[in-house]
Amino acid sequence: MNKLFVVGIGPGAYEQMTVRAVNILQSCEVIVGYTVYVDLVREHFPGKRFLTTPMTREIERCRMAFEAAAAGQTTAMICSGDAGVYGMSGLMLEIGGEFPGVEVEIVPGVTAATGGAAVLGAPLMHDFAVVSLSDLMTPWETIEARLLAAAEADFVICLYNPSSRKRSGYLQRACDLILRYRSGDTVCGTVSNIGREGETVALFLLRELRDVQTDMFTTVFIGNSQTKVIGGRMVTPRIPLCHINHVLSGEEK
Amino acid sequence: MNKLFVVGIGPGAYEQMTVRAVNILQSCEVIVGYTVYVDLVREHFPGKRFLTTPMTREIERCRMAFEAAAAGQTTAMICSGDAGVYGMSGLMLEIGGEFPGVEVEIVPGVTAATGGAAVLGAPLMHDFAVVSLSDLMTPWETIEARLLAAAEADFVICLYNPSSRKRSGYLQRACDLILRYRSGDTVCGTVSNIGREGETVALFLLRELRDVQTDMFTTVFIGNSQTKVIGGRMVTPRIPLCHINHVLSGEEK
Repeated sequence: MNKLFVVGIGPGAYEQMTVRAVNILQSCEVIVGYTVYVDLVREHFPGKRFLTTPMTREIERCRMAFEAAAAGQTTAMICSGDAGVYGMSGLMLEIGGEFPGVEVEIVPGVTAATGGAAVLGAPLMHDFAVVSLSDLMTPWETIEARLLAAAEADFVICLYNPSSRKRSGYLQRACDLILRYRSGDTVCGTVSNIGREGETVALFLLRELRDVQTDMFTTVFIGNSQTKVIGGRMVTPRIPLCHINHVLSGEEK
Repeated sequence: MNKLFVVGIGPGAYEQMTVRAVNILQSCEVIVGYTVYVDLVREHFPGKRFLTTPMTREIERCRMAFEAAAAGQTTAMICSGDAGVYGMSGLMLEIGGEFPGVEVEIVPGVTAATGGAAVLGAPLMHDFAVVSLSDLMTPWETIEARLLAAAEADFVICLYNPSSRKRSGYLQRACDLILRYRSGDTVCGTVSNIGREGETVALFLLRELRDVQTDMFTTVFIGNSQTKVIGGRMVTPRIPLCHINHVLSGEEK
């Protein structure tokens, strides 16, 4: 059975790949991916055959990977972040039915939600919802219902694809929906180019976030009702602070 | 400024750590953690000073780490999975205010949601909500409201801490809440001991999941209305299949 790996390479820096991802890419003959991600790893894996397609050519890219694997070449399809969060692993498993001689293995990675959270501080310490604002393949009504539900139930909310050239007002629309249930003082944060050159991080209140311009390399975090700023970091406490103070004063059971 | 690293070591296997996590642990003199996690990494980092506390002693553990760092020793606090998802990074940043001479850096890792998803297939390909069923520090009413909101808005739902010895009926209660909005035929999966000895994976329908016994090393995935089983894997399609077939037949724009 020929093996085809679907590998999450993390936010972008070589160091943020898992040891397993590195070992697999080193062992592969062919590495397939979106041009931008292949360029991120190319220098670390010399001597490989790299196959790329531009952004809209996902299905063609998947078939390229399956065809290389079916021809007997150890092959990896790479994705930024985790392969299973808005990545290629679902499509790969769907297309896999046409290539019964190829076994797909998914190799997880650090996704933008956790990679970005680490840069901001600790915003995801409690229950959270991940929502993509891209309506390319999801009706806006579905996105809207999810934002409202997550806001009302006081989830920390992490937004992927907050905007693009074609969708410049989407983050503002999302904030306005969330503001129906959350205070304008809710602590929010944005991280761009996580772990790469040009990494930028910023904190906002929810009422300010609605006017912030983001791009497709930005991940947005909207705190829950307990999220606060501690020493310049965005922190969602897991243990209520009153309990911590109680425990810190030596009364822990 | 003394550096204190909070390092997510991933689900448990050495290979699932990031390169950065490995490099940092290699560079540290002191590694602090919950006994079980320290035992997972100990053999890979010989010659380090290991400090451990049992499960309920989180605050003591944090203070140990800060005291080692404040005394000038390069120190890492390790957490399983990602340090920022129900991990120690929030508490570390909260306690950090007492140690102004120590700078905390969070190092992200593969969390159980993405690590487990990779074993199951691709359940998290679309918007998802992560909910912990532990009511140790969260009122059950809050957990219930979040489960209902996530179910109604058709999020894929990932459950952490689905049960423990003291909370044996919690997964059943959670399933019954979700069943108010989701079909009993919804595809679900469980993964235990991700990436470690004894890794087990199983698929269920939601109506079956309510009777499944889990433990604290299990992560539970409840699909959205589109999630299906493809070749024995749990897959939430990102692109509607009708669209894929359309594109596969050569009509992609």
